[in-house]
Amino acid sequence: MADNYKIILEYDGGNYSGWQIQQNTSETIQQIVEEALTKINQSKVSLIGAGRTDAGVHAAGQTANFFLDISIPVDKIPLALNRHLPEDIICKKAKKVNDKFHARYDARGKKYRYRILNSNFNSVFVRKFVYNVRKKLDLDPMKKAADILEGTHDFAAFCSAGSSVESTVRTIYSINLILSGDEIWIDVFGDGFLYNMIRIIAGTLIDVGRAKISLADFKEILISCDRRKAGFTAPARGLTLLEVFYD
Amino acid sequence: MADNYKIILEYDGGNYSGWQIQQNTSETIQQIVEEALTKINQSKVSLIGAGRTDAGVHAAGQTANFFLDISIPVDKIPLALNRHLPEDIICKKAKKVNDKFHARYDARGKKYRYRILNSNFNSVFVRKFVYNVRKKLDLDPMKKAADILEGTHDFAAFCSAGSSVESTVRTIYSINLILSGDEIWIDVFGDGFLYNMIRIIAGTLIDVGRAKISLADFKEILISCDRRKAGFTAPARGLTLLEVFYD
Repeated sequence: MADNYKIILEYDGGNYSGWQIQQNTSETIQQIVEEALTKINQSKVSLIGAGRTDAGVHAAGQTANFFLDISIPVDKIPLALNRHLPEDIICKKAKKVNDKFHARYDARGKKYRYRILNSNFNSVFVRKFVYNVRKKLDLDPMKKAADILEGTHDFAAFCSAGSSVESTVRTIYSINLILSGDEIWIDVFGDGFLYNMIRIIAGTLIDVGRAKISLADFKEILISCDRRKAGFTAPARGLTLLEVFYD
Repeated sequence: MADNYKIILEYDGGNYSGWQIQQNTSETIQQIVEEALTKINQSKVSLIGAGRTDAGVHAAGQTANFFLDISIPVDKIPLALNRHLPEDIICKKAKKVNDKFHARYDARGKKYRYRILNSNFNSVFVRKFVYNVRKKLDLDPMKKAADILEGTHDFAAFCSAGSSVESTVRTIYSINLILSGDEIWIDVFGDGFLYNMIRIIAGTLIDVGRAKISLADFKEILISCDRRKAGFTAPARGLTLLEVFYD
């Protein structure tokens, strides 16, 4: 009997073509973790991730599940897995779950953080995980603009072309701007996100912070449902999937 | 007339063979910064660093000085220099100084930080700048042991063989252990340090934290002046030169 396991993964997405397995590259996180699991299980394992992080996006708490044929104490899984993983992908936790648990279908919410390093110079210590904005940002209007996004809205203005979703309506439960030293964190907690949604929100909030977009304009952008009116897509390297929530 | 400039450098030492120029490798920080300065000056520039960080050791505030023949506004120097530097070396500040200023001879003190990630798993976000110790360390005896090191002592027990200094007496002005999330920081401020001194102090304090070395033994180690009695040399990647102090 195969058992179903849920794991929490942390990764530096900088060296990878995103989460999802692709035809033309083996450098995806899903593929690398599947290969490590297959070594442990000694037969093919399929890994189901809660969400598909894009190329260059990081995770502190990506969640995934898979079935193993072999019997292994659950607390040994992270160590066994990390032995087969590169240093920039780490399994932090494993839990035996109900056979019906599905990391993607059962996800009820996700929390992401966009990290802006608002400083004259980049920092060698965090450069791979932040977007360096040199011009001093005004946090107050950024917070007010962020508040406008909370709740259930059609976020079409904050969605890159090329996605084929049925609906662009999503719910943002909370969006908080946090000042931490030289960094500004945009923490977004929602039921699900459109293609590039958080990176476009970050880019648009940055434009608010440097007074290129007013609060009135920001409201207009959301209502317009027009991607061309919103700000730029902030770089992938500033974005981290913090946590996935389940019932 | 050549002008004398003092700069502050931040670097990720992980990809380099240390600060000091060597015959067999061009991958030293001094060499790379000298080459960048030479491009700006269009004739050879020599760079004097406050201290020689070892291979793999990082800096948040390495200090250096050099003379430039060309005339350039001092506030343009960091930007000009960073344009010629790789992303893991950043010039943060430049200041015009007296012709007599010498980054090494005039240094009055240095502050280093040794970062321990005391956690069951490493972290992809900080792994290059910390030493991951899995066993839970007991901070209290570590603090008491650190207190023993403050003041002027013969630190021969905390000095790797192979150094040819005249005296192994040094003064530690302060040594503080700081808990920051999952990290333990050992902050050491002193007038100068012997070869591998802070890394051996860190290794020995870690052994105190995991009850391999008692406080009484720790006192004995200092008095013995015998390197073989002290703990292991903690890895270079956990060490960062924070700041150099001048009159």
